[in-house]
Amino acid sequence: MLSNQLQNGVETAKLIWSRLPNAEDGSDDAEGDEDGVLRSEGFDAVESLDYEVIENYAYRQEQARRGKLYVWYNVGVKWFFALLIGIGTGLAAVLINISVENFAGWKYSWTFKIIQTSYVAGFIVYTLFNLALVFSSVYIVTQFAPAAAGSGIPEIKGYLNGIDTRGILLFRTLIGKISGSIGSVGGGLALGKEGPLVHTGACIASLLGQGGSTKYHLSSRWLQIFKSDRDRRDLVTCGCAAGVAAAFRAPVGGVLFALEEVTSWWRSQLMWRVFFTSAVVAVVVRTAMGWCKSGKCGHFGSGGFIIWDVSDGQEDYSFAELLPMAIIGVIGGLLGALFNQLTLYITHWRRNYLHKKGNRVKIIEACLISVMTSVISFGLPLFRKCSACPDSDSSIECPRRPGTYGNYVNFFCSNSNEYNDLATIFFNTQDDAIRNLFSAKTIHEYSAQSLLTFLVMFYSLAVVTFGTAVPAGQFVPGIMIGSTYGRLVGMFVVKLSQKTNIEEGTYALLGAASFLGGSMRMTVSLCVIMVEITNNLKLLPLIMLVLLISKAVGDAFNEGLYEEQARLRGIPLLESRPKNLMRKMTAKEACGNQKVSYFTRVVKVADVANILRTNNHNGFPVVDQPRNGETIVIGLILRSHLLVLLQSKADFQHSPLAVDMRSQSIPIRHNLGDFVKPVTSKGLSINDIHLSSDDLEMYIDLAPFVNPSPYVVPEDMSLTKVYNLFRQLGLRHIFVVPRASRVIGMITRKDLLFEDNEDSGSVELQSTSVRGEERAGSRVRRRNSEVGSPLLNGLLE
Amino acid sequence: MLSNQLQNGVETAKLIWSRLPNAEDGSDDAEGDEDGVLRSEGFDAVESLDYEVIENYAYRQEQARRGKLYVWYNVGVKWFFALLIGIGTGLAAVLINISVENFAGWKYSWTFKIIQTSYVAGFIVYTLFNLALVFSSVYIVTQFAPAAAGSGIPEIKGYLNGIDTRGILLFRTLIGKISGSIGSVGGGLALGKEGPLVHTGACIASLLGQGGSTKYHLSSRWLQIFKSDRDRRDLVTCGCAAGVAAAFRAPVGGVLFALEEVTSWWRSQLMWRVFFTSAVVAVVVRTAMGWCKSGKCGHFGSGGFIIWDVSDGQEDYSFAELLPMAIIGVIGGLLGALFNQLTLYITHWRRNYLHKKGNRVKIIEACLISVMTSVISFGLPLFRKCSACPDSDSSIECPRRPGTYGNYVNFFCSNSNEYNDLATIFFNTQDDAIRNLFSAKTIHEYSAQSLLTFLVMFYSLAVVTFGTAVPAGQFVPGIMIGSTYGRLVGMFVVKLSQKTNIEEGTYALLGAASFLGGSMRMTVSLCVIMVEITNNLKLLPLIMLVLLISKAVGDAFNEGLYEEQARLRGIPLLESRPKNLMRKMTAKEACGNQKVSYFTRVVKVADVANILRTNNHNGFPVVDQPRNGETIVIGLILRSHLLVLLQSKADFQHSPLAVDMRSQSIPIRHNLGDFVKPVTSKGLSINDIHLSSDDLEMYIDLAPFVNPSPYVVPEDMSLTKVYNLFRQLGLRHIFVVPRASRVIGMITRKDLLFEDNEDSGSVELQSTSVRGEERAGSRVRRRNSEVGSPLLNGLLE
Repeated sequence: MLSNQLQNGVETAKLIWSRLPNAEDGSDDAEGDEDGVLRSEGFDAVESLDYEVIENYAYRQEQARRGKLYVWYNVGVKWFFALLIGIGTGLAAVLINISVENFAGWKYSWTFKIIQTSYVAGFIVYTLFNLALVFSSVYIVTQFAPAAAGSGIPEIKGYLNGIDTRGILLFRTLIGKISGSIGSVGGGLALGKEGPLVHTGACIASLLGQGGSTKYHLSSRWLQIFKSDRDRRDLVTCGCAAGVAAAFRAPVGGVLFALEEVTSWWRSQLMWRVFFTSAVVAVVVRTAMGWCKSGKCGHFGSGGFIIWDVSDGQEDYSFAELLPMAIIGVIGGLLGALFNQLTLYITHWRRNYLHKKGNRVKIIEACLISVMTSVISFGLPLFRKCSACPDSDSSIECPRRPGTYGNYVNFFCSNSNEYNDLATIFFNTQDDAIRNLFSAKTIHEYSAQSLLTFLVMFYSLAVVTFGTAVPAGQFVPGIMIGSTYGRLVGMFVVKLSQKTNIEEGTYALLGAASFLGGSMRMTVSLCVIMVEITNNLKLLPLIMLVLLISKAVGDAFNEGLYEEQARLRGIPLLESRPKNLMRKMTAKEACGNQKVSYFTRVVKVADVANILRTNNHNGFPVVDQPRNGETIVIGLILRSHLLVLLQSKADFQHSPLAVDMRSQSIPIRHNLGDFVKPVTSKGLSINDIHLSSDDLEMYIDLAPFVNPSPYVVPEDMSLTKVYNLFRQLGLRHIFVVPRASRVIGMITRKDLLFEDNEDSGSVELQSTSVRGEERAGSRVRRRNSEVGSPLLNGLLE
Repeated sequence: MLSNQLQNGVETAKLIWSRLPNAEDGSDDAEGDEDGVLRSEGFDAVESLDYEVIENYAYRQEQARRGKLYVWYNVGVKWFFALLIGIGTGLAAVLINISVENFAGWKYSWTFKIIQTSYVAGFIVYTLFNLALVFSSVYIVTQFAPAAAGSGIPEIKGYLNGIDTRGILLFRTLIGKISGSIGSVGGGLALGKEGPLVHTGACIASLLGQGGSTKYHLSSRWLQIFKSDRDRRDLVTCGCAAGVAAAFRAPVGGVLFALEEVTSWWRSQLMWRVFFTSAVVAVVVRTAMGWCKSGKCGHFGSGGFIIWDVSDGQEDYSFAELLPMAIIGVIGGLLGALFNQLTLYITHWRRNYLHKKGNRVKIIEACLISVMTSVISFGLPLFRKCSACPDSDSSIECPRRPGTYGNYVNFFCSNSNEYNDLATIFFNTQDDAIRNLFSAKTIHEYSAQSLLTFLVMFYSLAVVTFGTAVPAGQFVPGIMIGSTYGRLVGMFVVKLSQKTNIEEGTYALLGAASFLGGSMRMTVSLCVIMVEITNNLKLLPLIMLVLLISKAVGDAFNEGLYEEQARLRGIPLLESRPKNLMRKMTAKEACGNQKVSYFTRVVKVADVANILRTNNHNGFPVVDQPRNGETIVIGLILRSHLLVLLQSKADFQHSPLAVDMRSQSIPIRHNLGDFVKPVTSKGLSINDIHLSSDDLEMYIDLAPFVNPSPYVVPEDMSLTKVYNLFRQLGLRHIFVVPRASRVIGMITRKDLLFEDNEDSGSVELQSTSVRGEERAGSRVRRRNSEVGSPLLNGLLE
């Protein structure tokens, strides 16, 4: 029943999105609502994508003004920012890791010290320590940075797909994310710090891109480059890659993650810059870790970044082993899909019922979960009978000394040469638990019973914890869950086969890959990340196999975790593939019977204000009526640009006559900077603008401000093709027009091939006026069409 | 002067491309010319890209006929073919490697045996053995498979960009490539077998895709999927990735190579399949190598695939080392750019002068180069004074036993505990030489003099060898060259610094990366390939750094190797980024004053034949004149489709009246299979079709065969935007039309978002007629527009 309700809810929301622009109740003015639920804004207001170059007259003038120096400056700044993003994200990762390791280190060393005398006192200290950390995290997030809750990856994915969620890239979100991560991970909740690091990287990138303009008082002309949507998104892409690179020390994995999972529009030029950012992160993190090795960072250094080196593990595999590995893949797909479905239900319920009740409920919820986690992780091992240490060589310490890291934890054991296998994985930081699960040469360390108990309990905890108001990543919990059942399968393989070179740790690794594949449905990037984490290339084909199976199994049930969550949060991602439904529809049908609001070229201010007030479209066609009497569409004007024009009043004119676009001195009183949408604030609204009655009687000539040639499609084009156009080029508006009455020309490949002999950038700077541009254009054509030499003899004969 | 001439040549060729469609001398009928020079065809004839869905009436009928089974069959076949491509490419790689290793093994073991008695006899045997292998290779290639010469990567890149080069994907090319590779690599030329393996993979993929239809006699309807250009290209992409994965045993590198370097249009769905293919290759190669380990494969097994394990090398680096590493990057950029430039000149000269003189010249040329290579590699070490073996521990064998692999080759030494350092790298297979250069714990093995001699000689040999008529890869020579100067720099670092943990082998590895980066200009894929080859993840940031520098330095001089070569071969690649020039041009200017040839909807056969004969355009607009008298463009018809219609004569009709498209029974006598372009043959020409005078008086109604809605652009759209549209969507034709007089609707994101609740594929199958399709479409719209529930309350309230 819940399932049905949810389904309906999701569907209704979808359908409503599609109606939003016709809604006139001002819903897009709703701020992130008072109880702190992260909520995307009204639809048209959030959509902010504009990869397409806006090439109105003002823009072209701006372009013409730029000097050669500017081009170099532009390139230089972009690379410099990539460097800064790398350094910033690397340092943030180091900070988070050092803090978490130290908090967790203190916690466990105190607890272990106290339980020498009293288990009850130890339990109380342990629980209170966890509670305090989690409380600090949830308090910061709810009171100060509501957008910092969760992993942030769905929101970033949405941002790069063209949907701004309010507040995800603010400075306070960054601070909340970092400090919240430290609290929630240090407090022992069943969540990770890796997802939040991606968000952190994105925040740093976005803030750097925008910080330059407000902080350093550089002229807006020089920082123009970071005001276009495309450049901002490029920076955020770099930030995402940097986040992954820092979280897993996986630079290639970071690049691939940004490519495969996060961005929607990828340009090969960008790959190079993202790659650089990741390399910088790798160097920064390595340097910091080298510095920490000397013991300057407290408990950090022995634990530190999650690098689970399994290079001393199994290197070879027999064909018979492929079967249990395939089984691990299937289990991963099933459990992963189940995880996605359960978290979807729970998040849905939380958003609609629990979190409606205000921040106090959220805080109480997180604290309750913290206490529950403490009780389970401390209490369950108490019921577990200790096992005797294996009497093997002395290379493995058993039991390990209290307060150190390693396998064979002595916890509530009557004998000093015994260990508690459940405590080894449960009563430990997650990083250490994973290291213990992956460890080689420790056959028979865990009993099946302990692993099963842990699997069930941790899975439940992870599901329940998902969606609380703290920063939460799903990578590490996923690895925990996966490696548990992986090790379980490995135990059976060891038991059944008589070979000695089978390592349970390798199966644990494959299990981890399978669960992540089954839940997140990434392929290449996840594979590379797993390889980089474990530093073992030989396992690559096995990881690939397991991922293939788990993703295929998971896909049979539902979508990936991030897609599900994005949808639930009302972030309508445009997938790369058009829906099957679209094949049957035409462009005209997609527009429905929605009325198009026109502007004429020279328009009365009162009319502009009126139209802007009575609908909430974001773009309007502008039509002109040249001498011969027929109307002609001269372009698209954006609501935001109109608002700027109305506010500044600089371009108002008394006469309804059009400006002569051919004269070189159009009195444009704006520079392009005025039209740039601010990153963090909401931007202008028509209601903020005061227009006197004199103003209302004036006119504006819109021609210099329109985008003169938006993409058009004929009315009966299949919606599949329209979708491809829209999605591939990252558009915001497409005009649906009647079929043409004639074809002026055909563009084929040959028309688009000519040598660009001039240096990059220099052409752009040769002409400084529109007339100059036209000259340049015709010059090129002449070069192409007046060569009369015989065919192909230049080069091939 | 040569440079200028070349420049002019390239430019003239470019300009001529842009004129080709107006040329009427039938130049596109030229076959790959008699002397076997690989030459692309006339331009419009080669262009074959059509990623866009052709959705004419016949296609839609075909779609409607398909059953649910078909969808599953379709998916299943695609994956099955991915499996087959993986297996095939893996086996081909194994075959090549086993053969090369065995030939080279025999050669060296015989030579070493003979030189115990006579160096002259040894030299003669060595030279003749090499000569015989190279002769076999060049003979096969020139006589039998001219398209197999060279690396094939530029051609494959062109194919995936939309340009067919004649013969590159034939079965004979595959055979020529495999056997030619064995000869040329086994014969000791300064070239590698990795580039050809990419081509081999692509051939296997293409042949599999097409073999199904001719060999197994499956109905054309069921194999439809592999007849669309898109599916063929997808298969070839898989093949490329498989080739790299097999060549370097680098499955992730293979995926990235296909993504970064080869394909022009990447769909994320494809990534998954490419990934699978690479995984299959990894398993196949591993299995084969395991089988060979028992000694069943002769000399293969000890050498085998190029995996240069440097995991016992340097793991750490100090900041001071970054400077020499940066220097390596700069050297790599400079030498790489120089390599590209020199090979460009030489290839140009070869194509225009030498290879014009026929196959005999090509054979003689290759044989001469083989003899030269033998003389240098045998002769130069003779002049080198032997050094005494290092008196270290016995872990390193010095000198190595004759006929085995390893460092410290005893060659022309007076003393038995001496070795010849030049022979160690020169008188060896390239794989072993690289292993020796990369080797750790062998400080001071090489003298700077030997390394310099080798660098100069091998660089020259590589430049001269490039472009001979044998299959030739540039990876391994590049690694050889790079690792030589890398090791040279490493020697100086070892000498200058007093640290003991610096390994010359690590510098050699970085040198190899830098030269490849400076020549091929790949980034992420090359980085991953290097890491996978050397099996050492710790060096990743260093490899990244070196690649960044060498690519940047190289880019300052010229384009990447493959781009230069593609351009020289007349493969006009459409880059992902529009040229700067295009900013100043409009769509109309790009078409020039080229006259557009129209067809009316119902057209006389004589007129069709006439128009097809008098120009060589590939697509024609079709206009109709409905009742109200105005003309309207109803779509685009392709030349190839017209030719099919003319040849079959089935759709000829006596009356000039149009068919009623609304009736369900349009007498289409073709199925879509007829319209599919054959892969290997040239396709129909208008001159092949005989039309009687009766036929010429008949009419054809083109309406069912047009592509009803090709993409259109307004005449004054900036060419940059047109380029983006063309390139991103992989189009062949764009109509340039007048500006619209009105806007019927606007498509924004919300219009493209609706849930696709039906299972994938099922929607497509619900309706079986055009009328049914329309019903389905309007049903969806209703769902979207008639929901009246209040805003956002479904999910979020």
